[in-house]
This record gives sequence, C-alpha cells and structure tokens, in this order.
Amino acid sequence: MKPIKVGLLGIGTVGAGTFNVLQRNQEDIRRRAGRGIEITMVAARNLDKARKIVNAGVGAGVEVVSDPFAVVNHPDIDIVVELIGGYELPHELVLRAIANGKHVVTANKALLALHGNEIFAAAQEKGVMVAFEAAVAGGVPIIKALREGLTANRIESVAGIINGTTNFILSEMREKGLDFATVLKQAQELGYAEADPTFDIEGVDAAHKLTIMSAIAFGIPVQFDKAYIEGISQLQAVDIRYAEQLGYRIKLLGITRRTRTEDKEGGEGIELRVHPTLIPASRLIANVEGAMNAVLVQADAVGSSLYYGKGAGAEPTASSVIADLVDVTRLATVDPYCRVPHLAFQPNEMTDVAIVPMAEITTSYYLRVYVKDQLGVMADLTRILADAGISIDAVLQKEPGNQVNLDIIMLTHQTREKNIDAAIAKIEALPAVIGKVTRIRLEALS
Amino acid sequence: MKPIKVGLLGIGTVGAGTFNVLQRNQEDIRRRAGRGIEITMVAARNLDKARKIVNAGVGAGVEVVSDPFAVVNHPDIDIVVELIGGYELPHELVLRAIANGKHVVTANKALLALHGNEIFAAAQEKGVMVAFEAAVAGGVPIIKALREGLTANRIESVAGIINGTTNFILSEMREKGLDFATVLKQAQELGYAEADPTFDIEGVDAAHKLTIMSAIAFGIPVQFDKAYIEGISQLQAVDIRYAEQLGYRIKLLGITRRTRTEDKEGGEGIELRVHPTLIPASRLIANVEGAMNAVLVQADAVGSSLYYGKGAGAEPTASSVIADLVDVTRLATVDPYCRVPHLAFQPNEMTDVAIVPMAEITTSYYLRVYVKDQLGVMADLTRILADAGISIDAVLQKEPGNQVNLDIIMLTHQTREKNIDAAIAKIEALPAVIGKVTRIRLEALS
Repeated sequence: MKPIKVGLLGIGTVGAGTFNVLQRNQEDIRRRAGRGIEITMVAARNLDKARKIVNAGVGAGVEVVSDPFAVVNHPDIDIVVELIGGYELPHELVLRAIANGKHVVTANKALLALHGNEIFAAAQEKGVMVAFEAAVAGGVPIIKALREGLTANRIESVAGIINGTTNFILSEMREKGLDFATVLKQAQELGYAEADPTFDIEGVDAAHKLTIMSAIAFGIPVQFDKAYIEGISQLQAVDIRYAEQLGYRIKLLGITRRTRTEDKEGGEGIELRVHPTLIPASRLIANVEGAMNAVLVQADAVGSSLYYGKGAGAEPTASSVIADLVDVTRLATVDPYCRVPHLAFQPNEMTDVAIVPMAEITTSYYLRVYVKDQLGVMADLTRILADAGISIDAVLQKEPGNQVNLDIIMLTHQTREKNIDAAIAKIEALPAVIGKVTRIRLEALS
Repeated sequence: MKPIKVGLLGIGTVGAGTFNVLQRNQEDIRRRAGRGIEITMVAARNLDKARKIVNAGVGAGVEVVSDPFAVVNHPDIDIVVELIGGYELPHELVLRAIANGKHVVTANKALLALHGNEIFAAAQEKGVMVAFEAAVAGGVPIIKALREGLTANRIESVAGIINGTTNFILSEMREKGLDFATVLKQAQELGYAEADPTFDIEGVDAAHKLTIMSAIAFGIPVQFDKAYIEGISQLQAVDIRYAEQLGYRIKLLGITRRTRTEDKEGGEGIELRVHPTLIPASRLIANVEGAMNAVLVQADAVGSSLYYGKGAGAEPTASSVIADLVDVTRLATVDPYCRVPHLAFQPNEMTDVAIVPMAEITTSYYLRVYVKDQLGVMADLTRILADAGISIDAVLQKEPGNQVNLDIIMLTHQTREKNIDAAIAKIEALPAVIGKVTRIRLEALS
C-alpha cells in the first residue's frame, strides 16, 4: 500500500520529537503498521528552524510552509497532526481539517477540554478520527487503556498525577525540605517549569487532562468549566513534613469519581477536581516521584490498575502521537462504526450525569490549626468537629520554632466539604486560633 | 446491527467471571461497543454447574453442551472464547475454530507460548483474529500497551512481576520473616496457590507469559523452549532479609531484553529468563506487593513505563477477555490488514534474532557464602572475584545463629553469567567455605 501522508502543524519540542522518532524508528514502525507513514508537509512560524529539523532527518520531499491552513487544505494530506498548542488557532485549524475530511491527531489537552464536544461532533459527522493519546500523561497509553483496555468495566474512579512540573516540585520540596518558591525557581532553571508556570502550578493543565479522562471514563461530555481547580502555589513545606510524619505524601491529584449527591434524591453525580492531596505513603502512586506521571483507575471487574511513565517531553509525547498515527493509518479506510468512539462511548450513548459542586464532595481532611498554647484549645477544636459529626483519625501536636504557639494537626474521617468548611469557620473564630486553618484533602485510594 | 454471537469453551473461574461481567455491564459495554455481544453457547464438562451459572444470569437462549467441538463447529458462532486451559484439547479446538473461520479469544498462555506460531499462522491464513490480552497479567492491558500504545518505540526490555502466587509468597516471606514452605501452605489455604503449585512456584507460568511478551516486543516468534526458568522454591528467608538490609527486594521477575552476544561478532540477541531477582527497594516495581502484577517496559522514545494491576482472578481476567471481545467485534468485518498484527509485527516482518543462552547473559549478582570464620577467607573470596574481573559493589558480614561461622554477602558489578559461575566453583573449592554458594541475580532496572 502507498504510505499515508501526514501534515505537521508546529515543529516545536513535540513536533521535532515526532519527526525524529518517526525517522529513527521508521523501519520498526513500518514492520508493525504494515504501511509507511510519511510526514510530507510541515507548517511552522520559524521556517529556517523547521527546515533545519526536517533536513537533519530525511528532508527530501517534505514541504515546509508558514501557513498552517495550507496544510489542512492540501488535498494530498490524509492526517493532520496539530502540535501548535493554545486554543484559538488550533480550534480553527482542527475544525477546518475535519471539514476537509482529514483525520486529526493532537496533543492539545486545552483544546479538547474546552472544545472537545464540538470537535468530536464535527469529526463524527464527517466520519473522520480525532486521536489524542498524547494529550493526557504524555507517553503513557492511558487513553487507550481507559477506552479499550478497560472497556468491560464500570469505571468507579480515576485519580492521577498528571502534571510533571508540580510533581517534580512536590518531590523536591519533600526530599530537600525546601519551600515552594525556591523549588519553583530551580525547576525553571532545569527546564521542568516554564517561565510562566501558572497553568501547571495552579492545576489548570491537570484539570484539562482530567476533564478528558472523566468524559471517557463515564461517558459524559467534556466539561472543563465544571472542574474544581486548586494548585500547589499555596502549599507550605511544613505541611509536607507533617504529612510525612503521619505516614502520607502530598501530591497534586486529579480525581474524577462516581458519587451520590445530596441535592437530588439518590442522584448520581461525578466528581471532577484537582487539588493537593494527602495519600498514604504505602500506596504505589504515592511513590511516583519527580516529573513522572501515573494514573490509578478503580473499576468494578479489574479492581485497581495503575499506568506510569513520562508525562511530558519531546519523545515520550511523540511516542503517543505516533501510536495515534499508526491507529489512524490502520483504520483510515474502514467504516466509522469499526473504530473506537472518540470518548469511549458511542456519541448517541453519552449521558448527562452532572458534575457535583465541590461543597457536595465527600472526602477526608488534613487540618493544621496554629494556636496559642492555651489550656482547653484542643477541647474546643474537638468539640466543634464532634458537633459537626466529623470524627478525628489522628492528631499531631508540634511546636514550630517558638515554645509559645502550637501547630495542631488533625486528620478527619470522611465528611462533606461544606461540613468541614462550616467547622473551619467556627475554629477560626476561636480566640486561641491564630490566622487561617490550613485544609488539605486526603484520599485513602484503597 | 445484530449482536455478535459468542461461544464459551469452559465455564470455570474465568468463564463464570466472563459470563457475569458481560451480564452485569452489558448496558455499558453495548454503549461503548455499539453492538451487542451475546454468549449463546457454553461448553462445559459439568453441565449442571454450567446451567446454574448461566441461569443465574440471563439464561434464556444460552445453549449448554458437553462437547466443545459442537461450539467451534456451530455455524452461528462468530467468536470462540477458549477458557479450558492446558495444551492438547485447546490446541485442537482453537485450530478447528480458526479453520471454521471463527475469531478466537483466549486466556491460555501455555497454549500460545508453545503453539502460538502455528496458531497465529493459521489465523493469518484464514483471515481471523486470535486475541489474548487475558493471557498475560490478567486484567492489566499490557498486550495492548505493547502492541499498540508503544508502537512508535524500539523496545529495549520488558521486566515483569507476572505471577501473583509467587509475588504473594515473596511478600509474605519478607513481611513476616517466614520460610517458603510455611508461606506456600498458607497461600494454598487462602486460595492464592493451587494444590499442585509447580507451574507457579517454579516459574513456568511466568515464562509462558514472558515468552508471549518477548515475541511482541521484539518481533520474534514465540520460543518457550529457549526460556531460562528458575522458580522460588529454593529461595531462603535469610536471603530476603539480607537483601532488604542492603536496600533490595527479591521478586520473581520475567526479563526479556535486547543484548549482544559474545559468540557472534557484535551479534544481536534476546534475553528470555525468569528467576528470583534483587531489585533496588526504591524502584516502583519493587513495591508491588501481594498477588499484584506489574510490567516495566523500557523503550527508546517513551523511556520507562509501568503497568500495574491484578494478574489473576475471575473478574480481572474476564475484564481482558471482554476487552478482546469488544476489539474483535469492532474489527470482525474489516479487511485483515486493518487489524493489529497478532504479534505486533506483520507476519512477513518477523525477525529471527536468537535467544541467548543463560551463560552469555550479563547481569549483577548477590552471592552468599557460608564460611568458617578463618582469617584470610575474605581475602580469598575477593581475590577469586578480582581474578575473574568481577568488581564488588557491597559486602555484608553476618553471624547467623552461632559465633563460629559467618555469612558473607557480596553484591557484584555486571558480569557474564559464565564468569560468575566459574568464580563460584573456585569459591566453593576453598577449604573455609561450607556448602554451596547462594547466587541470586540482581537488576538495577534504572
């Protein structure tokens, strides 16, 4: 068979990685795919740089252009690989490519988390594929595991370390006892964090990825606007240390889970939340360190399963882009009903189970209360929690620096977030309590 | 579309699990697959038991028969699910099913490790699929990850904890300090080990699974007869304890890896070996405890990735059987070239890279030498190793029980197995050395 023709939009880190891996392993890939996969067009802002990358590879026959629309409109291109990033331009380009009957491979989680419903509907209408393994957890084939590997299961929850930058920062903070700002600066120098790290450290990137996994796991539309997002920039080194003393690690987890809401009688809901989370140190996922990613899935037949690997970087991401290219190549000509649906469920079989608001979530909590060392303060704290029906699992009392004031750390049983928030308001009103209560969610993940 | 019709051969643990999961989640599975999947025939030795399981489900319309050939020969059956186990009968049944133009799903690693080449060739010839996700690591979708998720990569090595029984035994031995025989008995009482545990504890089951992964990873035929197999029945509690003191865990690992042989000039070779292995305790895979499975893959683009979950049991295995059923259902009618090749590489693109004999393997070693506490014995040991060009990484000296004799434990650098064996023969000939040297291989897995 003739090789399939691929147009690349963007030849930055991932684009260059894709080009290089496809060149280096073309023999193995062809032996597997049974058909050649050729990048024949590349659109790039910096033409010189793009030509340099292309020419370092095979070069001949690859057309380098500055206008990405020239690629998506080109009649010879079968598959468009979108690696530009951002929202506006890729949105337009991907829709145009689909309208032109081309299959699309993208690593753009932001695009899919925000415009996935529109894009997948357009692709469905046109009978083309939009593949996006590279959009979640880089080189880890988690989309394939969720959509295909676990297809027999009713999935109960997905919990992931899906942002390498924040996991690197948290690992460094714990291992070296450093504070957030210091480690962030180091991470930027090492290239693990971007100059503007907001999307990573504030949890937005993780929420994009989680939104996509949530849709696939539960057969619901992507609903990024409903995600609860809390990053790690407010996290203090002292809490990481106390957590460790209690047998926990703090990770930025993306969690999506089936739940029951109070507002509707026995109503089903879906949790969709990203925040720092205490996890028992004995859990495998608690031991995922550095810039690595891992996704833990709970499902009814298979039980717990975990998928671990590099979540970013040129070649790990390229690994997923090319896996998608091979899948798309294989299924390019078959009847669309023979393909795996974009969001795992057939488009006419999606449900509209609501994302529950954060106040309705049930989980456990780590509370740190900074108090004047007065007789009776512990009694006040425990009374407030008891009145709210919140049980305490563990208490730790520490003197940070001076001998006068105390850190009181408590781990609670499961309770609704609105209950803990009400109790915290009462705790903060106690005269012996100094400043705000630090509250970090805790998941047993058992 | 009409539902696809499935015939089940065997309704033991996995068969019943498959029946139950398919019934329980039929709505979700249909929403994903876009087509119903119906078990319409079941062949079982115990008809009463089979009817009981079937009737507890939907029941009506499922024909229960005692002759499995009635299923594979039945014109209405589209897919045959072989869950009988063993070699002879399944071999015949699977080949007959293929000859009859039926697709096959099997969990039978023994069958594929021994007869895979013949079976896949027959399936290729006939244009049908043989799917076997359930044959390796139970519910973990590792076959899909290797064949599809990592298809862009040149795979360097696969190392797996792929037998739950032995991992359970090793975990218990370490945690409770018990010896092998005691823990095996407990495992049998708990149902984690079979009455005749030979296949598990001697590494045969792991070698079956490793053989299949090796073929997929490297594009070579299945070659079970070339696998090196060493089980855990000779492993002593004292070595687990010493390993832990040195910062290692002992796991039964299946390892398959690209290597270079000495016998051919720069010749490529493949390692294929199952044996107890020391792993640094800090590695994620070293922390896989109990009956869980995990597979660590090293590949050029993606780097390290790991896949973890339940490796056995009715429903985890059923999860993979049904995932295969959905895949096969989706691709039942497409041109065969649109399907993923059985062993990842196109049948005409397999290579014949040789499996290297164990003497040619290069790895590190844990050696325990039991000696009379004589002056100069350490000098003799180190001289023998130095003469063989083997460097020592760590030494531990212990007095087990009495004050007269000593355990000397040494961790070596990498060396060829034939070198260490020659050195061990010399060590055992020393007058101060009592009995045999305990030798366990060590892998850094970095």
